Amino acid sequence: MNDIYCLIMAGGSGTRFWPKSRVKKPKQFLNIVGDRSLLQDTIGRFSAFTPTENIYIVSNKNQAEVLEGQTPLLPKENLIYEPVGKNTLPCIGLAAMFAEKENPDGVMVVSPSDHLITDEKLFSETVLSAVNIANEKDGIVTIGITPQYPATGYGYVQTDEDITGENAIKQFKVRRFVEKPDKNTAEGYLNEGGFYWNSGLFVFKVSVFLEAVKEFAPALYADLRKIQKDIGNQTFDQTLDTIYGAVESISIDYGIMEHAQNIYLVEGNFDWNDLGSWESVYQVNEKDGNGNVQSGEAIFIGAKNAFIDTDQGLVALIGLDDVVVVKEGNATLVCKRGKSEEVKKIVDQLKSEGRIEYL
Amino acid sequence: MNDIYCLIMAGGSGTRFWPKSRVKKPKQFLNIVGDRSLLQDTIGRFSAFTPTENIYIVSNKNQAEVLEGQTPLLPKENLIYEPVGKNTLPCIGLAAMFAEKENPDGVMVVSPSDHLITDEKLFSETVLSAVNIANEKDGIVTIGITPQYPATGYGYVQTDEDITGENAIKQFKVRRFVEKPDKNTAEGYLNEGGFYWNSGLFVFKVSVFLEAVKEFAPALYADLRKIQKDIGNQTFDQTLDTIYGAVESISIDYGIMEHAQNIYLVEGNFDWNDLGSWESVYQVNEKDGNGNVQSGEAIFIGAKNAFIDTDQGLVALIGLDDVVVVKEGNATLVCKRGKSEEVKKIVDQLKSEGRIEYL
Repeated sequence: MNDIYCLIMAGGSGTRFWPKSRVKKPKQFLNIVGDRSLLQDTIGRFSAFTPTENIYIVSNKNQAEVLEGQTPLLPKENLIYEPVGKNTLPCIGLAAMFAEKENPDGVMVVSPSDHLITDEKLFSETVLSAVNIANEKDGIVTIGITPQYPATGYGYVQTDEDITGENAIKQFKVRRFVEKPDKNTAEGYLNEGGFYWNSGLFVFKVSVFLEAVKEFAPALYADLRKIQKDIGNQTFDQTLDTIYGAVESISIDYGIMEHAQNIYLVEGNFDWNDLGSWESVYQVNEKDGNGNVQSGEAIFIGAKNAFIDTDQGLVALIGLDDVVVVKEGNATLVCKRGKSEEVKKIVDQLKSEGRIEYL
Repeated sequence: MNDIYCLIMAGGSGTRFWPKSRVKKPKQFLNIVGDRSLLQDTIGRFSAFTPTENIYIVSNKNQAEVLEGQTPLLPKENLIYEPVGKNTLPCIGLAAMFAEKENPDGVMVVSPSDHLITDEKLFSETVLSAVNIANEKDGIVTIGITPQYPATGYGYVQTDEDITGENAIKQFKVRRFVEKPDKNTAEGYLNEGGFYWNSGLFVFKVSVFLEAVKEFAPALYADLRKIQKDIGNQTFDQTLDTIYGAVESISIDYGIMEHAQNIYLVEGNFDWNDLGSWESVYQVNEKDGNGNVQSGEAIFIGAKNAFIDTDQGLVALIGLDDVVVVKEGNATLVCKRGKSEEVKKIVDQLKSEGRIEYL
């Protein structure tokens, strides 16, 4: 079997977890659930079936300190810093340049760094099933999450022919990738069946992926090859700045998955939560008898179904249901549950006002 | 005209302004409205018509540091520290012992330290009108606040004969003091007329007051005389601890005003607010176009009629109307407006759990 390489994409600067997430410590570095950060949990899931020296992380220099602090067991040379975020396709392409140098026949598993998945066993089995398809079919494989409700916040993948063999985990040829739908469309997908949530998890042979880049994004392909020649040289950082800094910003979904033919889907039935807002963190935590969730010191009086997270100090809540209170460092958020997607507006306002001490 | 002495009672440990009010810095020491503390505002009102060396403050040792810090212009010997709080009658009696030593013919004005009164001119005129009655009639005079609504949170004073002379400010003989009424009773008072809110402001000749103490609280009177003998001696603190520590705790209303005959009332038409809760602080502050009040750094998104007070750092409020958020030091309160009287429950809970770092 080919070597498995993992790429964890950790460059995101998610703003939905403000004030806990900050420019230098976005969501993936936070202990949102449990004692480890989401990134550390992600590394842990991959360590189950691949050696740590095969795990690459792409991030950016802003996050270097916290990233190195959280990944003491990973070789430093596996931490790749984008000079500027360019969405998923260039990011994956860059990591593929490193992996190909190690082993051109390797299989790469690409994963977001900030999702919550607790069933590690089923996760491993699902990924290994995807690795098998990637090898057998020379395909680009995505892991699709069985939809729980007609979500409008995720892209969907529509499946075609069922190619599940003796395997317990279902496998399909993919018909198409579709962008985030409106409510009616999402309901239609669920009624029709055969649609999965796009998890952002991809599996492919490095060589197969690079063929696709060459075909569907030839300019990027040429630039990546130039960058690859300089890996290990003293001039690498400068080369990366110059060339990578100028590539087109594009997602793998839009750049490849919506065009390529050899796309497969493996059904992901493990628990999965992309933790898109404080509301989803409330949902995944254990509640007390009043439906309250507490991290840090809190007192609830006449308050139900509320969420309090305080880094230090006490938060006391009186006479309010369905609220989220998050205190972190120099900022405190008080938000009606169900409005937590508007946290982004706070961050936008702070940015536009140049109040960087709160970002 | 006799010398005017002022006694500001500043020993309260008000818990309704937690987390801004703490054991060592209760309400009277807070800048709740404007740049000065309520105590400093109170001193300022009296400085308009009496020299600072005639202003006494009774407080307790817990508050000594903040009290001295806030009163740099007052003689240190005018700061009197109760070894333990004994309600208003012993407190006033104690101050009277000091004032009598200075001038047995003096008139004393007794005032709470934590009320908000902004019309200083009318306040002065009203107090001086009360001083006149106290002198002319050898009476104990209270200033009654013209009721704005049938409040159940204040005691009332029912007036009798109108003795207003040529003075612009109305003056009455008092029929009786009554305790905080229920809603129906309060409404009855307002319909009937002739009832005023008990402001806690009293004016009397020291000699007249001490006669009343002698008549209605003879044990206290005897103890106060013992304490007075030791004023200026090295043993004073110990004498105070022993004797004052053992006197009965009783209010001037209950101990004297409900019994004495020579009681008068001067009508107070100045603005007056006892700031009994965060709700009242919201009410007295200027609002922005959305009815929001802000002290410190705050962002409101989809939030109306809300109050944010933060000592440092930012508070962002999303999608909630009618809330109070107060961040001070190591504690943050988030409270539905209208529930702010329940803040006391937080303090009670913290006390019972011994979490003194938050008290």
